[in-house]
Amino acid sequence: MIIKKFNNFNNNYLFSLKVPATAANLGSGFDTLGMALNLYNIFNIRKLLPAGEFKCETSGEGTEELSDIKDNMLVASYLKACEKWNVDKPLGFELESCNAVPFSRGLGSSSTAVTAGVLFAKLINNLNNISEPELLRMMTLIEGHPDNVAPCFVGGMVASCWDVSAETLQYVKLPALPDDLYVIAAVPDFKVQTEEARKILPPSVPFKDAVFNVSHAALLCAAWAMGRWDLLKSGMDDKLHQPHRAKLFPGGEKILENIKNYKDCLAVAISGSGPTMIAIVKGKAGDLAAEMCRIFTAGGVSSHFFILNCAPDGVIVEINN
Amino acid sequence: MIIKKFNNFNNNYLFSLKVPATAANLGSGFDTLGMALNLYNIFNIRKLLPAGEFKCETSGEGTEELSDIKDNMLVASYLKACEKWNVDKPLGFELESCNAVPFSRGLGSSSTAVTAGVLFAKLINNLNNISEPELLRMMTLIEGHPDNVAPCFVGGMVASCWDVSAETLQYVKLPALPDDLYVIAAVPDFKVQTEEARKILPPSVPFKDAVFNVSHAALLCAAWAMGRWDLLKSGMDDKLHQPHRAKLFPGGEKILENIKNYKDCLAVAISGSGPTMIAIVKGKAGDLAAEMCRIFTAGGVSSHFFILNCAPDGVIVEINN
Repeated sequence: MIIKKFNNFNNNYLFSLKVPATAANLGSGFDTLGMALNLYNIFNIRKLLPAGEFKCETSGEGTEELSDIKDNMLVASYLKACEKWNVDKPLGFELESCNAVPFSRGLGSSSTAVTAGVLFAKLINNLNNISEPELLRMMTLIEGHPDNVAPCFVGGMVASCWDVSAETLQYVKLPALPDDLYVIAAVPDFKVQTEEARKILPPSVPFKDAVFNVSHAALLCAAWAMGRWDLLKSGMDDKLHQPHRAKLFPGGEKILENIKNYKDCLAVAISGSGPTMIAIVKGKAGDLAAEMCRIFTAGGVSSHFFILNCAPDGVIVEINN
Repeated sequence: MIIKKFNNFNNNYLFSLKVPATAANLGSGFDTLGMALNLYNIFNIRKLLPAGEFKCETSGEGTEELSDIKDNMLVASYLKACEKWNVDKPLGFELESCNAVPFSRGLGSSSTAVTAGVLFAKLINNLNNISEPELLRMMTLIEGHPDNVAPCFVGGMVASCWDVSAETLQYVKLPALPDDLYVIAAVPDFKVQTEEARKILPPSVPFKDAVFNVSHAALLCAAWAMGRWDLLKSGMDDKLHQPHRAKLFPGGEKILENIKNYKDCLAVAISGSGPTMIAIVKGKAGDLAAEMCRIFTAGGVSSHFFILNCAPDGVIVEINN
């Protein structure tokens, strides 16, 4: 998180948040590893309203789905955080949201809303005693798992462990990828229901598959920390979730199999629970991105792509004093 | 590995290897994570002998068990590596081994022998084209798993993945612990059969337990790389092997449960497949070491302890030119 304070009379906003997309569940790191991407949803508070009153104007991704304020996850997260932190009758607000993160495609759009809602709960209600770890704990509590909200909030690549029963979070931020490594996000026009993506996972796994993922996730984190980018591909190898989930959308299995063999490709994975696929690439990203989209097309789905970098800082907060 | 070359006429050895003990299977990192410790077995080659002739003089740990040259794992590893590398009629040698690493107690004594045997195969037969990765691959092939031989050879803390069918190894070395963190190794006078320790592990595990270990091993590696020593304890939490194996020796469960609650204790784990228990500690290590031994005593087993550091360099090779 970066906080910038302004004293700008021409600025129409009290608070403005720039909240990054995230690619989570990275390969071997199911429910554990995620990275922030430099593709942002922007959430501006125009003015405060009396308790219980919320207005929202949405543009960009998800505009249709977000038309009803009752379905607004940012507002729900704001209210939930206020309740947990014992804010009596929290103020309402007039929100403007400009969304660039594809809606419900595995790039953490819901986490941008949760992250922003929890941050607004602190900012609007002047909860100065709420620390950064508590902010992130609350985001995780509301989201249910840490692997999107953690990199969304702090940036870079994050390894995190969430203890559901104790409601405690532990995490380590690793640095962002260097600027000459790009992250392709290939986004098919297809939705995977998170519930379906959860249901397809088996209740138990062979001991050796568990050990396979343990060793590859450990290798991935160690390689990332030491800049051993040549080991990302192997480190992302996974036997827990991708073999099941890649079947849920056309092209998933083929992209996992084929794309990693390209010369410049350092790693490929399902982003979140899909259907977006990401590839980390050194050098010309355009060709590989086009190839990923061609595989989606061959599977009968249209798609588009982004060529991104790993975002080093997470949320960028602007406060108009 | 560090190589030192001497031209010392008073030195009676052609080659001298100082090979560290290792603590592997560290908590969440079953078959994956291991660290080198500054407790060494020393293997000296006095002179070369005709092919097929081996003599060995052993002192220190395991002297009784190693009396028959046919059971000598160093010689067996030497011959195996020579065979794999197509050395025709490899020379024999007269070996002196001075062992400080407890024999068959979970501190990687067999890995010191494998590491030394493979290194001697290269050194004695002048196999200059054998690279360091190939040396370590051969050590892993002979040992069957990489988590002891990898830190034994390269030092520090190592995350490694061994692909059994392809016989390929990938690993990343993380730096050693800082000097003000100590590793207590509490060694009971009790043997755990490796076979028994393998057999007690279940054929399959709940999906959520697999994810638990994935996330904790990832956290452990990220924390280790970033110097977040406060997170080692949580990062070493494990649901795959320790809950089963701690039952195999008196005091195991109690040490896992109790010792980590001591103020200066940063982590506690079974070393290898036990029965040695290690604790990473900041500050006064003696009190905690004594407490670990008291728990063994209460379980009816005598024990002794070492207060060690993580060894940064792995094997130290001295060559007498």
